[in-house]
Amino acid sequence: MEQVNGALSDLVILDLTRVVAGPFCTSMLGDMGARIIKIENPRGGDDSRAYGPYVNGESAYFAMHNRSKEGVTLNLKAPEGKQMFLEMVKKADVVVENYRPGVMDRLGLGYEVLREVNDQIIYAAVSGYGCYGRYSQRPGYDILGQAMGGLMSVTGTDESGPVKAGNAMGDILGGLNLTIGILAAVHARPIIGHGQRVDVSLVDAVLVSLENVFTRYWYSGVVPPRAGNANPATAPYDAYQAKDGLAVIACGNQNLFEKFCLKVANHPEWLEDERFVDNVSRVANVKVLRELIEAWAIDHTVNDIVTNCLTNGVPSGPVYDVSQITRDPHIVEDREMFPVVHHPVIGDMHVNGDAIKLLETKPHVTRPAPTLGQDNEAVYGELCGLTPDQLVQYHERGII
Amino acid sequence: MEQVNGALSDLVILDLTRVVAGPFCTSMLGDMGARIIKIENPRGGDDSRAYGPYVNGESAYFAMHNRSKEGVTLNLKAPEGKQMFLEMVKKADVVVENYRPGVMDRLGLGYEVLREVNDQIIYAAVSGYGCYGRYSQRPGYDILGQAMGGLMSVTGTDESGPVKAGNAMGDILGGLNLTIGILAAVHARPIIGHGQRVDVSLVDAVLVSLENVFTRYWYSGVVPPRAGNANPATAPYDAYQAKDGLAVIACGNQNLFEKFCLKVANHPEWLEDERFVDNVSRVANVKVLRELIEAWAIDHTVNDIVTNCLTNGVPSGPVYDVSQITRDPHIVEDREMFPVVHHPVIGDMHVNGDAIKLLETKPHVTRPAPTLGQDNEAVYGELCGLTPDQLVQYHERGII
Repeated sequence: MEQVNGALSDLVILDLTRVVAGPFCTSMLGDMGARIIKIENPRGGDDSRAYGPYVNGESAYFAMHNRSKEGVTLNLKAPEGKQMFLEMVKKADVVVENYRPGVMDRLGLGYEVLREVNDQIIYAAVSGYGCYGRYSQRPGYDILGQAMGGLMSVTGTDESGPVKAGNAMGDILGGLNLTIGILAAVHARPIIGHGQRVDVSLVDAVLVSLENVFTRYWYSGVVPPRAGNANPATAPYDAYQAKDGLAVIACGNQNLFEKFCLKVANHPEWLEDERFVDNVSRVANVKVLRELIEAWAIDHTVNDIVTNCLTNGVPSGPVYDVSQITRDPHIVEDREMFPVVHHPVIGDMHVNGDAIKLLETKPHVTRPAPTLGQDNEAVYGELCGLTPDQLVQYHERGII
Repeated sequence: MEQVNGALSDLVILDLTRVVAGPFCTSMLGDMGARIIKIENPRGGDDSRAYGPYVNGESAYFAMHNRSKEGVTLNLKAPEGKQMFLEMVKKADVVVENYRPGVMDRLGLGYEVLREVNDQIIYAAVSGYGCYGRYSQRPGYDILGQAMGGLMSVTGTDESGPVKAGNAMGDILGGLNLTIGILAAVHARPIIGHGQRVDVSLVDAVLVSLENVFTRYWYSGVVPPRAGNANPATAPYDAYQAKDGLAVIACGNQNLFEKFCLKVANHPEWLEDERFVDNVSRVANVKVLRELIEAWAIDHTVNDIVTNCLTNGVPSGPVYDVSQITRDPHIVEDREMFPVVHHPVIGDMHVNGDAIKLLETKPHVTRPAPTLGQDNEAVYGELCGLTPDQLVQYHERGII
């Protein structure tokens, strides 16, 4: 079926964000059809243009997070630059930024100024600690969001000490929450009659992701320990060492444990063992059970274990490394999670696809990431009425 | 200021979800003002009503994830139950479910049936592997999303082996992506003229969260190893053992490292050391540098280190455990992240607040979680026209 429209094809978004949390949000909105105008400083642009891996001198890191965006350069400290930005704000729905709170105010481009020129504008920001609160001026990084939001304290093993998630999970959670906030504010506009400010902090976003970890604490008084891979409420439910990797086996109830013992592992005697007679006993004796399962699993491949479990209705799957994910046909072919985009400098490159499958307005990469200032002429001609002469002059003066 | 309207106050959402991923999504939508009608089976309801911790016999786990929702019971296998559901679909904007794909079709209530009675309906589902693709019928659990989406492979230390995030991160990422998908589909409705189906899988949602971990793999061919807490591109940037806990110190550039050595640690000789002369050298010698920093840090409290760093402009923060988070005044007072809700059985309880700060239509808990079938009379009277007699009769027959 021909792609008709993106879900957000009527939205114009001015994107001042850099590096991860903000660009991740706006690339998602771009994949869903919003027009994203990424505004970078004329001297080098987004910091992440200097992050590897590089291909033909161009950052693949930047290219990944900035697909589906147009790109312009603008010096927001120059009076002409401020004026051009305000001209664009008049024609936009959303401004997104991830500066430390206060930077836009000091540029004379804070929310109060922007709403004067367009009361429908939505001003969305993500930062380490949010735009208000006593820590708002602290420098924020992903690792600080993971540390202060509690994720590190519950991740890892008894031996490892607190460990952060191996990705920039604080930034990702911040970007997802910011995306929800933007769409909610767009929806609210006709209800309240105008735009509003959306504020997301990495610490808040991580904290909320811990969900019932807090509920357990409030009602037990016990500080939740690091979780490892086991489930404190169910056993067996863990990743087990097999011959060639780790396999997850998840028996959420007695029936599944019986199937596992009888049909998968061929150890009917485990069912008779009083240490494993019910879920409560299995949780109490989880280490012994684990040793027995691993003594069995080590003689089998991950693929055999997973196939055997699934055939018998026992939930199971491999612990994939990154290379294995890029070869899994369900993920690559059926779910289309690594589309190829043609970038003018990098060439054909894989980017991550979209997790949000809107089945009629399918999100997709609409264009490769922009080279620095690539769309200055088109965007400033259209939105700010700049003539070709002015474009040349403004470029020479470092305004664009 | 008095709360005027929620951002989503014109939306009616029928919520068939259970346990975490779906209920997390709909509680967020409820906090933003959408009317959420949670539909549970009359025999016990949502599985998570049986999950601890319990207070006065009521599950605090369930109460946390189901605040801001009305609650009704409905037997979707009974003909009258199906008919009542379809009546409600006519008056609703969104149906959300997290069954294994195919369950709603087998009930005769799949998307194709629902769109016949209301072509504006949005049908949103989250599952382990999505509603299409060769694994769609596999049973999905949070740990499988984390395992097959790659998060486990990059989380942990050299010694720990792959570790999952200590929370139900797969479910949370699934719930956040589903929320975005619902809001995008609502936005798209006037553009395309009708509702559509939204499909999110835990594996896809986890995969996308790994962002540039994949880019590094595509261009280096090296399978990304477990990340520990250090940053492969910058040093020092890690969590360090202090006298009474762990402190994060994040020197993202040379200037910050100089401030740290001269003003915080009082070790100017580190700056002269050729092993630490620039960021590349520090990354190469990160273990030695770490030992030196920890030999210094162990004599200082976390609070002293963080305060000293921040005073001197060096990014820093504590690695909080859950109890410390609940006492931090920025988080609790300024950001209002643990509001108290009065539940009719549990009493006053803390729930997690909202990470999405819409400053004019502030998300907030609108009501405590429902007891089972609490709103049957009001909802079925209003939306299905059931008389008091019918309500009694349907209850006795197990339809509601």
